[in-house]
Amino acid sequence: MDKKTEKSEKVTFNISKDKEFSSWFSEIIKRAELADLRYNVKGFVVFRPWSVTVMEKMYDFFEKELQAQGHLPCYFPAVIPEENFEKEAEHVEGFEPEVFWVTGAGENKIKRLALRPTSETAFYQLYSLWIRSWKDLPFRLYQRANVWRYETKATRPFIRSREFYWIEAHDCFSTREEAERQVKEDIEVTERIMHQKFGIPFLPLKRPEWDKFKGAVYTIGSDSIMPDGKVIQQPSTHLLGQNFSKAFDIRFRDKDGKEKFVWQTCYGPCISRIFASLIAIHGDDNGLVFPFCLAPIQVIIVPIFKKSNKEKIEKECINLRNIISEENISVDVDLSENTPGEKFYFWEMKGVPLRLEIGEKEINDKKFTLFIRDIRKKIKVEGKKLISEIKKQGEELDRRLKENADKNFKNSIVDAYSKKEIEEILNKKKIARCNFCSISDEGEKCAEIIEKELLASIRGVRADIDEKPFDKCVICGKDANFVVYIAKSY
Amino acid sequence: MDKKTEKSEKVTFNISKDKEFSSWFSEIIKRAELADLRYNVKGFVVFRPWSVTVMEKMYDFFEKELQAQGHLPCYFPAVIPEENFEKEAEHVEGFEPEVFWVTGAGENKIKRLALRPTSETAFYQLYSLWIRSWKDLPFRLYQRANVWRYETKATRPFIRSREFYWIEAHDCFSTREEAERQVKEDIEVTERIMHQKFGIPFLPLKRPEWDKFKGAVYTIGSDSIMPDGKVIQQPSTHLLGQNFSKAFDIRFRDKDGKEKFVWQTCYGPCISRIFASLIAIHGDDNGLVFPFCLAPIQVIIVPIFKKSNKEKIEKECINLRNIISEENISVDVDLSENTPGEKFYFWEMKGVPLRLEIGEKEINDKKFTLFIRDIRKKIKVEGKKLISEIKKQGEELDRRLKENADKNFKNSIVDAYSKKEIEEILNKKKIARCNFCSISDEGEKCAEIIEKELLASIRGVRADIDEKPFDKCVICGKDANFVVYIAKSY
Repeated sequence: MDKKTEKSEKVTFNISKDKEFSSWFSEIIKRAELADLRYNVKGFVVFRPWSVTVMEKMYDFFEKELQAQGHLPCYFPAVIPEENFEKEAEHVEGFEPEVFWVTGAGENKIKRLALRPTSETAFYQLYSLWIRSWKDLPFRLYQRANVWRYETKATRPFIRSREFYWIEAHDCFSTREEAERQVKEDIEVTERIMHQKFGIPFLPLKRPEWDKFKGAVYTIGSDSIMPDGKVIQQPSTHLLGQNFSKAFDIRFRDKDGKEKFVWQTCYGPCISRIFASLIAIHGDDNGLVFPFCLAPIQVIIVPIFKKSNKEKIEKECINLRNIISEENISVDVDLSENTPGEKFYFWEMKGVPLRLEIGEKEINDKKFTLFIRDIRKKIKVEGKKLISEIKKQGEELDRRLKENADKNFKNSIVDAYSKKEIEEILNKKKIARCNFCSISDEGEKCAEIIEKELLASIRGVRADIDEKPFDKCVICGKDANFVVYIAKSY
Repeated sequence: MDKKTEKSEKVTFNISKDKEFSSWFSEIIKRAELADLRYNVKGFVVFRPWSVTVMEKMYDFFEKELQAQGHLPCYFPAVIPEENFEKEAEHVEGFEPEVFWVTGAGENKIKRLALRPTSETAFYQLYSLWIRSWKDLPFRLYQRANVWRYETKATRPFIRSREFYWIEAHDCFSTREEAERQVKEDIEVTERIMHQKFGIPFLPLKRPEWDKFKGAVYTIGSDSIMPDGKVIQQPSTHLLGQNFSKAFDIRFRDKDGKEKFVWQTCYGPCISRIFASLIAIHGDDNGLVFPFCLAPIQVIIVPIFKKSNKEKIEKECINLRNIISEENISVDVDLSENTPGEKFYFWEMKGVPLRLEIGEKEINDKKFTLFIRDIRKKIKVEGKKLISEIKKQGEELDRRLKENADKNFKNSIVDAYSKKEIEEILNKKKIARCNFCSISDEGEKCAEIIEKELLASIRGVRADIDEKPFDKCVICGKDANFVVYIAKSY
């Protein structure tokens, strides 16, 4: 192997995302410097600038949308007294095994405090003091926060770790109807941001009774699919009903003069998890592909020079960077000592949507070469149209990423009429859609069969549309009351 | 007392900030709903939307400035293994008494983890893996994060609590000179953001040896003054030298081929603390006064109507809100059932910079009444000039707040030639400037006298200018080597 080949092998990524997704995912995290797994506490990772810059933009999108909907931001403490935690019986039972406990301060032993695994029991303690009248409702707060859960399943960066980065919104209403309208609005937020902006398609699924959030009346999860066919739960929204308002005594005086308990919902987009879907769904065998609207660097400029014109070309590149930057486009010039080829591969692997190649010819002709990451094509752009072309190509790239993801997602859902068919569908890395007896407790036995024999789970029934069963229950053969989606999951 | 007076007494604030600052501060936090102290863990408070919206804007200002300087964002875990924590001897000695310890997970006992009180010992563990060559330097990361300290001094919301909200920047350089240049740049960031934008003046003071950050070569703190004459430490920057790089083995191969330890700095703007200064310095006897650039609502519209034209006026107000809102100005209409007078007092107390009063006359004349919060004056504005006038008045308000704060701050610093004079100056709620023997260890005895007899401390010597001593040491009478600033402090 000559020196040149060796070098370019080092810089190219070249792992089949579809065939070896697990290696692809681990390797891109390392190569693109998204996270470092060498932090010396098990299950905790360090998130590096290349992922954090994107996650910060994702936070922005979600927070603006929540604010537009009437939510206000707040900061609640990260520690929750055990007594709060124990107020809602199902909730404590569900979360206690996962709680990290703070028990000491300096040299003192203190009454133990839970590191929040989620903040219902912190927020609602105060809600009972703040909410007095129907005039205070609806009452909608959110916080961006990190939460901690002692996960016993294998941890994977972004997908599941013991500390993760999310937003939690906690809302109160005077009636169940209004609360249920909020649940629908939450799904709409997921649709508008995660799907429309980030290009991540999902199914909003009402979870079976045995799989709902502990303390909720019902849970609607959003399932996206990863390239290995496993689904990953994205933002979920919960109708809490009056379970917590009764436990925490959150009452209001209604228009009719009567004291009533509020109706509650909560919604939790996990930013670090959505990031996992983002890179997994849009990436390709050459590495990351970021949507233009989220990329840490949207345009990378690569100077093409000989020794004789290096200074001139680099100066032109810096000029151009300043011009593009003024248009609120995130842009950089690669002035490293790598060869142009190495730079091309590197920034492709990093997922930068657009690359400008600038050499003597480009400067003289006032025509630039623009490389488009997702389709890996070069186009020529006239100098004076550069800015508008960058914006246009950015939008088109985002549209294509979403369309491709949608197409793949649609093709991933296949009807099944028997356990064997479900198995075949799962083996093809897809989601099975089939008839099922019940998602109430009486269906749990059939679900257990699927769990044990196929290592998959009943993800739930569509929350956005009404689907009528078209056959008997695929497991027990009794009358089917629901159309459910079955998948392996993270 | 008739009903009307009773009502208006309920809505006016009217506490003398200068005479009763402590009551003013506690009361405004409650009345303006900035924080709630009733959370059931001692020393932990809940930050409510009216303060969080401002703190989020403060984060934005600081983060953009740090990024412009070449810092990149990252997220490090909130837990730090005890073994990391113990690597730098002085550091562990300084922080251990304040650390909250996580010792349990679910039902398991785990090796104890520190909840970060600051993140040197988390970051630098990884820095030793990331930094290899002089080409990797300068290396600059920051994170926005909450940190926890088991404070034994009395806690006060925003000023000192057991959980606070800050940014920490951790930088590495190849030489001491570059590191010291960063320390100066950090002070410049404080100047450009906290002083120029937020209008909070400060003195950058090199702390005496006995008061530096544990593990640092030296510390430069920023002292602002509160209305009660106590100074409050704002962003501090530390030259860490090679203390941590030696403890954590952060080495790089320099241009000369030799392996060297990096030179480090860290910088920590505490957002919740800057918020304390912001409200204390700009507020007045009627409540809060927010700078226009930070206000959660920049313009409040109050409709003035009779029963007969209520609908029409409110509709016009909503129209106007939509027009102003399109200009990226944060604006709202008060459609509550309160009287105009109550609304005026309420939004004055909340610190909204500008108020638009809209009645029949205003609509017919196309001339609006604009009330300016800090000077409490009304001006008339022509309809077509409204947007430009709002922006202009906003800028002028910010300029005035800064100028007034600067004037007060300048007047607060008084030269002292004896212990008695220092005492008199402190009693007048001011800062004493005087000659002092030494800020190295040999000066600590004189400092202790000031500490014990005057309950004040040597805050340090100016880091921005060189001040020559003009007399003997104010305490021991020996030759003075420094001009120091003495104050009571939070």
